[in-house]
Order: sequence, then structure tokens, then C-alpha cells
Amino acid sequence: MTPESPRTRIRRLPEKAVEDVAVLHAILDAGRVAHVGFTDDTGRPAVIPTGAARDGDRLLLHGSTGSRMFRRLAAGAEICVTVTLLDGLVLARSAFESSMHYRSAVVFGVATEVPEGEKVAALRAMSEAWMPGRWETLRAPHARELAATTVLAVPLDEWSVKVSDSPPDDPDDDLDAPVWAGVLPIRTTYGPPVPAPDLRGGPRFPAESAGWSIG
Amino acid sequence: MTPESPRTRIRRLPEKAVEDVAVLHAILDAGRVAHVGFTDDTGRPAVIPTGAARDGDRLLLHGSTGSRMFRRLAAGAEICVTVTLLDGLVLARSAFESSMHYRSAVVFGVATEVPEGEKVAALRAMSEAWMPGRWETLRAPHARELAATTVLAVPLDEWSVKVSDSPPDDPDDDLDAPVWAGVLPIRTTYGPPVPAPDLRGGPRFPAESAGWSIG
Repeated sequence: MTPESPRTRIRRLPEKAVEDVAVLHAILDAGRVAHVGFTDDTGRPAVIPTGAARDGDRLLLHGSTGSRMFRRLAAGAEICVTVTLLDGLVLARSAFESSMHYRSAVVFGVATEVPEGEKVAALRAMSEAWMPGRWETLRAPHARELAATTVLAVPLDEWSVKVSDSPPDDPDDDLDAPVWAGVLPIRTTYGPPVPAPDLRGGPRFPAESAGWSIG
Repeated sequence: MTPESPRTRIRRLPEKAVEDVAVLHAILDAGRVAHVGFTDDTGRPAVIPTGAARDGDRLLLHGSTGSRMFRRLAAGAEICVTVTLLDGLVLARSAFESSMHYRSAVVFGVATEVPEGEKVAALRAMSEAWMPGRWETLRAPHARELAATTVLAVPLDEWSVKVSDSPPDDPDDDLDAPVWAGVLPIRTTYGPPVPAPDLRGGPRFPAESAGWSIG
């Protein structure tokens, strides 16, 4: 459980707050894209989507050495990293009670750059989180590729989680309305793989991907 | 086309930048959740997911009158609102060239509160964007529901869009690697509707939803 701080305490719909670290981990593991918030050099907020993967008790982000955002983050800027999974539309008998099913994780902190000696292991962890088993089928990274890549680690110390997964909660007065109510689930799945136009020889879609999950 | 400003000019992978306002609109229309970035009262960044729907040349957000974030936004805080759709994993022959297919829209600006007299129309526009046809099957909002709801409008003036939709771009040296390469598409769809436990009478799942789209 995260120590409560003024910015992780959920005031809005506190009944949806979850303090179980296993739920935090599950959300980060199911997500692929994190929205990274920081203030730019004029002090104004910016929110940029970036690939993120959990490695134990830290969240890893990777990007180009030349990226302004990654340079700013590596320099110790305060950040807020949010991962949201949208799970459904909640169709209540009124617009007011209609809502969404979602799971969201908000992590506050400062990122630190993964040192050169640990960079390959961190990139491998990110690859394994998204595409288990693929890393070992690929060639090792070239030195110039590693030099062009920044890997940042955000500690999972200060965070909050909200989960909305209940049926519509209409007041009694509305229950006889002649309208369907319930949840329309939203599913995220992989579609059939599309081979690269320049695919040579006969490699098949990798068998290890059969177990890859999303969403 | 948006006038270029220092913060909307895309420096990273500029070949993925899109300046067509129709693409901006399509991303905002396909998305359901926006990640809203702002600075909290200590000057630190926060990123909160919230439902967002486009209404012409503005993006509408709605939330509780009691929400700290909505109060802060309504007071004229600078915000950055980002909508991202993840469309696939790009499996290249190397980890370095592996990436994702995505569409993302980043909107900068200041939100203004939709005045009382226009609030119902704005809420209807949001409902219609997500669940076309449902609004007219629901009772009208109660006055106290409207009073409890803040609707904010963010003008689509300063924005940038990136679209990544190309096959893997491996260097020639890697093309003979005995590994499958291509794109694993990510699909977002609606699953079978789940009736509310307290559903009374025999209302069927609304026919108008047959045409609802997501993703």
C-alpha cells in the first residue's frame, strides 16, 4: 500500500479508490501506453504518450536520446505518469448516471536514467513485458542503438489507483424508465498479423506470440 | 491547419506529424478518454483521465462541480489534453526498430466553462458523440444534476497530431534475419452487453447502439 500523500488521496468518488499494489501492477502490466505529464520550459503542462512497461517496483520508459521530453525528464523534472484502461460504457437510465468502466493508475515522482550497464537488461524487460519470448529471437542491440536510446525508471512509490467496474446505480425513481440499462464492455484484442512487405524467406508469425496479452 | 507554435512543432519523428484538421477530428472522435495535464497548486504536473468528446471545433469535458481538477481548469489554468489510440505493435527484426502504431492528438490551451444556458446542449453533444441516439430515449436532466455538473470547452486552436502507421523499417543488414516481421494490429471493439441486475420490464439492448463505434 502506498503511503497516502495529499496528491494521491482520492477525493472524487473515493469509493473507487484502490490501495492494493497488485491492482496497480495489473493495470501497468495491461497497459502499453502511459501518458507522461511534465511542465515544459515555459512552465506550462505537456502530456505525451509513450510506451511504458513495469519492471518490478518501477515503471520503465524509453525514448530517443534526442527527445526534448526525455532530456527534461532525465534532468530530474517532476512528472506524473498515468495509465488508463477503458473497459466499458455504463448505460444508466439517465445521462447523469451514465459513466464508464475504467482502471487508471496515476504515478507521481521523478524519473532517473537507467545507467549504461543496465540498459540492455531494462530494454529486455520492456520487450518481454509486451512481447514475451521475442527478445531472444532478435539480434543483440548495436552499441549505436543503445547510445541513441534513453531508458528512464520511475519508482512506484507515490501513486493512486481508481477502478470503476460497477453496474449502473440509478435512483429508485428511475428504475421503471422504459430504457435498457447495463454495461457495454469494451474489448481490446490483437487482430490477425500483417506481414512486412519486405519479409524474406519463410518465417512464420512467432509462435511465442500466442500467449501475448493486451488490455 | 493549425498555426505552428513552438510547442506544437513536432521535432521528434517529424515525418509522423500530421497537419490535417480532419485527422485531428477523427482521433478525437474515435477516442473516449482524454488525459488532461495541468499543474497542481504546488506547481507539480498532474495527469487525469476524463471523458472527452468533440463538438465542432472544441473539445468538451465534463465532471463534478466538486472536482478539484475541474475547479482548477474552470479558473483558467493552462492545460494540455491528449488523446491516444493504440493501433498495433510493430515487430521489426531488431528491438531498436520495433515500435507501435498509434494516433495521438495533443491540444494545448485554456478551458472555459460552458454557461448554464448551453449546458444541456453540450451534455447532449457529448452523449451523442459516444452513444448516438440514446439521449432522446432518456429523461431530461434534473436541475440538481445540471448544478452538480461542470462542462468545460477547450478550443481546438493549438494542437499537434502524430500518426504512426507504417510497416517495420529495418535496415538492409537486418532483412535476412530469420525472424517474422510485420504488424500485430490492436483492435478495440464492443463486447456483448451486460444487463443491469436491477433491469425491470423487458427493454431490449437499444437498437440505436448497433451503429455505435469505438476505437
